[in-house]
Amino acid sequence: MRTRAAVATAAGKPLEIMEVNLDGPRAGEVLIEVKATGICHTDEFTLSGADPEGLFPAILGHEGAGVVMEVGEGVTSLKPGDHVIPLYTPECRECEYCLNPKTNLCQSIRTTQGQGLMPDGTSRFSTLDGDPILHYMGCSTFSNHTVLPEIALAKVRPDAPFDKICYIGCGVTTGIGAVINTAKVEIGSRAIVFGLGGIGLNVIQGLRLAGADQIVGVDLNPDKKPMAERFGMTDFVNPSEVEGDLVPYLVNLTKGGADYTFDATGNVKVMRQALESAHKGWGESVIIGVAPAGAEISTRPFQLVTGRVWRGTAFGGARGRTDVPRIVDWYMDGKIEIDPMITHTMGLDDINKGFDLMHAGESIRSVVVY
Amino acid sequence: MRTRAAVATAAGKPLEIMEVNLDGPRAGEVLIEVKATGICHTDEFTLSGADPEGLFPAILGHEGAGVVMEVGEGVTSLKPGDHVIPLYTPECRECEYCLNPKTNLCQSIRTTQGQGLMPDGTSRFSTLDGDPILHYMGCSTFSNHTVLPEIALAKVRPDAPFDKICYIGCGVTTGIGAVINTAKVEIGSRAIVFGLGGIGLNVIQGLRLAGADQIVGVDLNPDKKPMAERFGMTDFVNPSEVEGDLVPYLVNLTKGGADYTFDATGNVKVMRQALESAHKGWGESVIIGVAPAGAEISTRPFQLVTGRVWRGTAFGGARGRTDVPRIVDWYMDGKIEIDPMITHTMGLDDINKGFDLMHAGESIRSVVVY
Ligand SMILES: [Zn+2]
Ligand SMILES: [Zn+2]
Ligand SMILES: [Zn+2]
Ligand SMILES: [Zn+2]
Repeated sequence: MRTRAAVATAAGKPLEIMEVNLDGPRAGEVLIEVKATGICHTDEFTLSGADPEGLFPAILGHEGAGVVMEVGEGVTSLKPGDHVIPLYTPECRECEYCLNPKTNLCQSIRTTQGQGLMPDGTSRFSTLDGDPILHYMGCSTFSNHTVLPEIALAKVRPDAPFDKICYIGCGVTTGIGAVINTAKVEIGSRAIVFGLGGIGLNVIQGLRLAGADQIVGVDLNPDKKPMAERFGMTDFVNPSEVEGDLVPYLVNLTKGGADYTFDATGNVKVMRQALESAHKGWGESVIIGVAPAGAEISTRPFQLVTGRVWRGTAFGGARGRTDVPRIVDWYMDGKIEIDPMITHTMGLDDINKGFDLMHAGESIRSVVVY
Repeated sequence: MRTRAAVATAAGKPLEIMEVNLDGPRAGEVLIEVKATGICHTDEFTLSGADPEGLFPAILGHEGAGVVMEVGEGVTSLKPGDHVIPLYTPECRECEYCLNPKTNLCQSIRTTQGQGLMPDGTSRFSTLDGDPILHYMGCSTFSNHTVLPEIALAKVRPDAPFDKICYIGCGVTTGIGAVINTAKVEIGSRAIVFGLGGIGLNVIQGLRLAGADQIVGVDLNPDKKPMAERFGMTDFVNPSEVEGDLVPYLVNLTKGGADYTFDATGNVKVMRQALESAHKGWGESVIIGVAPAGAEISTRPFQLVTGRVWRGTAFGGARGRTDVPRIVDWYMDGKIEIDPMITHTMGLDDINKGFDLMHAGESIRSVVVY
């Protein structure tokens, strides 16, 4: 079939909107119609050329929601008409990782996914001239139709709006999951969130959902304060307004250090501050942000010997097929909010404007609606 | 009363054996006769002058066992004749830390202990001329008699030999506790232990006790191999004999990385290797060793984002009054071994020889028997 897609032809160039060929689903695969997709910093990271593993030409996008059109041989868990969210971290439920309750990092299709290919080592996308176009993070939601492995699709309730729940495919789950799955925050905890962008806001609402008593937000931009408060932030700290070192200020504000801290900045210096503002004896710090290639975190080992724990999280520790439908339910039940974070929507033809808005810091999330 | 003690008069000087004055126990304190004491690297660290918090003159020693002679006002949990092990990490069972199940770092007497004083801010030790001598780590077991707070004494069974169980006051509990309390190693785990000194051997026997399937020991000194095997090591790796990088070698040896790794070297480069040889997705690395002042650990945050966890431990995460008596029972029941690690015993007059043996790397543990 033919479909319309925004193609990343080369690093650093705007996406090109064009018709492309899409082969039908092979065994274990599913063809979906993408109804909406968010534009994420990870797409920007790859498009810019900063991602050392970025491959071109490719169809980017990994934060979508859509409807099943056709299933390949052997697919049993999905049928045409099902509403789905694509998963860049699949859940095969059979590999060594899926069978270990401590991790969500299913490895079953990791190698081919990293190469921009379906599990059989080929691509379903090509130009009208027949040249192959690569998949991206196993999703390629910047195409109106795409093919994914069955294990990379979460089936969700049909009454949830695509243009909101697409954000659950990445940012919402990453932020809320970091709190619930990775840190396992308890009721009454004190927490600090570094960075009040989209991920930070979702960490904050995850903390509210988990019953945290104090939710400190840290950001250099005071304009972030009202939205963060809306999502549950109780204290705002602008490091540029703190006299002296930030860490002792935060330790004091949280009565000895936070039970949990979260880095949503990707800055390795901030990651260190996040660790060191965790409480002696039991404070845990979770790294969510993606650091520049080659950047390293550091601290004195004394920080750990006196009881702090340093962790990281990917896709919020969520097992997508199991956890994503629950998060959609939470949204539909009003337990979490998404609507205020979707600051801009646009058609596929305007997708490059979404990237411009991200660069300008004007959007929390732009969503393309097909 | 008068007693005999080895006094650290100044940094870098040998201990001086002398008679000293010891005041009786005040409220909440207990006078004990020390029957045996180990000589630990931490004593050496302070005596050498490398410890930035070291104070002189002081009576060092923190790894003892003895008998209660007299109790001060209000002491209810101990009586004369009870066998006890001094605790440099006390357990008050009332402070914010003791009441938090995630930590063992009781803070109730921390400030005065760090100043070399009893909780009321004074010292019980003085020279025959009346000049005060400081306590050390709240224990001062290099004195034949010493005074401690009631909350810093673990009551143990009376049939356990002092010259062996004294080691439970530090090294044994630190190593075994790192496995059981801090890492919470499960049956069937794969583990790597960096550094096969006294702490490393105790980590190894902790892993055996916890039912680990693979226990890899890493040390540059091949002479450490037989003893480590005796305590449960299944694989020995000498980094100087590994071609190429150590980390991928260890990851391969443990089929993808170890479930748990332990640094017992105090070397920050080794701490990084320990983290990075932990299994993607769920491997946890525990820092036990004490690093030189100012040294920092570092790694790429990607190591944590892909599921590794970095922790530390102090006194093996043990709550001394609760856990130390159980470890004495384990020793008496043959679940753990101590005897082969006590390589030298000596009288107090020869205590400086114990430090010499440590410097020469000839001892695992030297014990002074009074
Ligand atoms: Zn994303
Ligand atoms: Zn899997
Ligand atoms: Zn010690
Ligand atoms: Zn306490």
